[in-house]
Amino acid sequence: MSILVLMDGWSPAPWATALQSVLPDEQIVIYPDVADRDAVEYALVWAPASGVLNQFPNLKALFSLGAGVDHLLRDASLPDVPIARIVDPDLTGRMSEWVVAQVLLHHRQQLRYLELQREAVWQELAQPAAADVCVGVMGLGELGRDAADILHRLGFALRGWSRTARTVPHVSCFHGADGLDEFLCGTDILLCLLPLTPDTEALIGKSVFDRLCSDGPLGGPVFINAGRGRIQVEADLVAALRSKVLKGASLDVFEGEPLPQDSALWSLDNVIITPHAAAVSSPRALSHLIARQVQAHRAGQTLAHLVDRARGY
Amino acid sequence: MSILVLMDGWSPAPWATALQSVLPDEQIVIYPDVADRDAVEYALVWAPASGVLNQFPNLKALFSLGAGVDHLLRDASLPDVPIARIVDPDLTGRMSEWVVAQVLLHHRQQLRYLELQREAVWQELAQPAAADVCVGVMGLGELGRDAADILHRLGFALRGWSRTARTVPHVSCFHGADGLDEFLCGTDILLCLLPLTPDTEALIGKSVFDRLCSDGPLGGPVFINAGRGRIQVEADLVAALRSKVLKGASLDVFEGEPLPQDSALWSLDNVIITPHAAAVSSPRALSHLIARQVQAHRAGQTLAHLVDRARGY
Repeated sequence: MSILVLMDGWSPAPWATALQSVLPDEQIVIYPDVADRDAVEYALVWAPASGVLNQFPNLKALFSLGAGVDHLLRDASLPDVPIARIVDPDLTGRMSEWVVAQVLLHHRQQLRYLELQREAVWQELAQPAAADVCVGVMGLGELGRDAADILHRLGFALRGWSRTARTVPHVSCFHGADGLDEFLCGTDILLCLLPLTPDTEALIGKSVFDRLCSDGPLGGPVFINAGRGRIQVEADLVAALRSKVLKGASLDVFEGEPLPQDSALWSLDNVIITPHAAAVSSPRALSHLIARQVQAHRAGQTLAHLVDRARGY
Repeated sequence: MSILVLMDGWSPAPWATALQSVLPDEQIVIYPDVADRDAVEYALVWAPASGVLNQFPNLKALFSLGAGVDHLLRDASLPDVPIARIVDPDLTGRMSEWVVAQVLLHHRQQLRYLELQREAVWQELAQPAAADVCVGVMGLGELGRDAADILHRLGFALRGWSRTARTVPHVSCFHGADGLDEFLCGTDILLCLLPLTPDTEALIGKSVFDRLCSDGPLGGPVFINAGRGRIQVEADLVAALRSKVLKGASLDVFEGEPLPQDSALWSLDNVIITPHAAAVSSPRALSHLIARQVQAHRAGQTLAHLVDRARGY
């Protein structure tokens, strides 16, 4: 019996080492170096090529690295076993750090201050209070709720939008297609923490940007995306930034990753780009979580944080 | 009877207007346009020239704009009346926004990511967890405690240092000259929110920078100052940044303000400069507070947030 580590784009060795250290009696194997495919019962995976997981007939469950599972569900031949997402305080905390940093960078006009600094200009900019700025959070799962909680502590006004109705303390909640209009028109900083599903793909484009609050205290709306890149329509995003429909943006995710060298996004004013690094799973933090899931499943218990395949997350 | 508005470097008119709107029955006068000096009972002041306040024989109390009162106490002829500091959620919130933004900027290596972005380079940097980074807060008054509370919520480890012993939740507290060594040697990000007093003037120089944690997860210690500029020794600061004793800095305050055009600080790597704008008092938010103080004092009550002149804050 063994646990498979299979990941594309990341080095699997640190994950195998971390798992082995917390599960010393288990056999850990790294794809493609698998002598006995029948022995594989569990797999820790990121972005497997379509069809690969079909090669393991005795798989009992999949553990997805990262909060989203679109990298798995795009495989039409994915074995019909439970999929558990990562919901972990380390991952959530890293995401909230990134989100709070980006909201504050735009709110406090830090890029403009850096420009003034390069010219050795001492000039104070008018600064609205956080209470006068509304952050609209799309996606009210674990990540969205944690970010909203800290942003509330910092004094920001908050709105939230989700697929189905939610109640979140200190957040004015809207949901579904019917709630989108009202959500957007009061939002100064739009924060996307949605999963990528058929419903959210290309959801955020011109029609969303045009409906954001255009006369808010920041001098124009800001878009922040740490969900998935294919939720945003990048041609519309570039156009909205160029025409000043959007005042600025912070982007950690893109339609295609790595972001192509010739993308206009790299050099637009008031845009901050990070390389899908907002919340990178740490082997040390997550191996304990996966060990608990394996032990629970072997003991006949249900896995935590199971994915609903129909819903897509 | 009248209330005087007297400020150097800021425009007094918005303050007079805001005060008049919440105290419609009071006479508000703006220095130097004061017909009847004997009528002035209260003064709202920032950085008055030495001797000026002596011209008002019937002053009953002074209200200092901003959290620090060093701008008043340097006047040897200051009338012997109560001085009340501004302690206000709006001011505290603005300071915490700036502090949290700067801590996260350094922690998340945002300036390095901006450099990579300018070269269109997609490269992920190793990222320590917040729990492995210790922020050391010097000054555990209203501002220091609020910043520490939010930084704890973000997952950072926290130490604190103050003149006299303090207990702050989630913060390892040290105090006095005897506690400074131990406080510094475990600190990765040194955050100064001290008042300027004879004890703190030039307190933070080479001997402090040399004692900070040199092998921490950020690749070197970071210094952040939003207290007062004359607490830092800028020649030592420049030397420590050049020699990489310090990895970076964020500075809102300086020995002389505005920061001279020829200061080396403007162009050093990994230094962020803002023009004493971390927490700017807002007339709208603060006029209510001052109105309450005037009304309380007229009713024979003690003023809130009184300054201890011997202590200097």
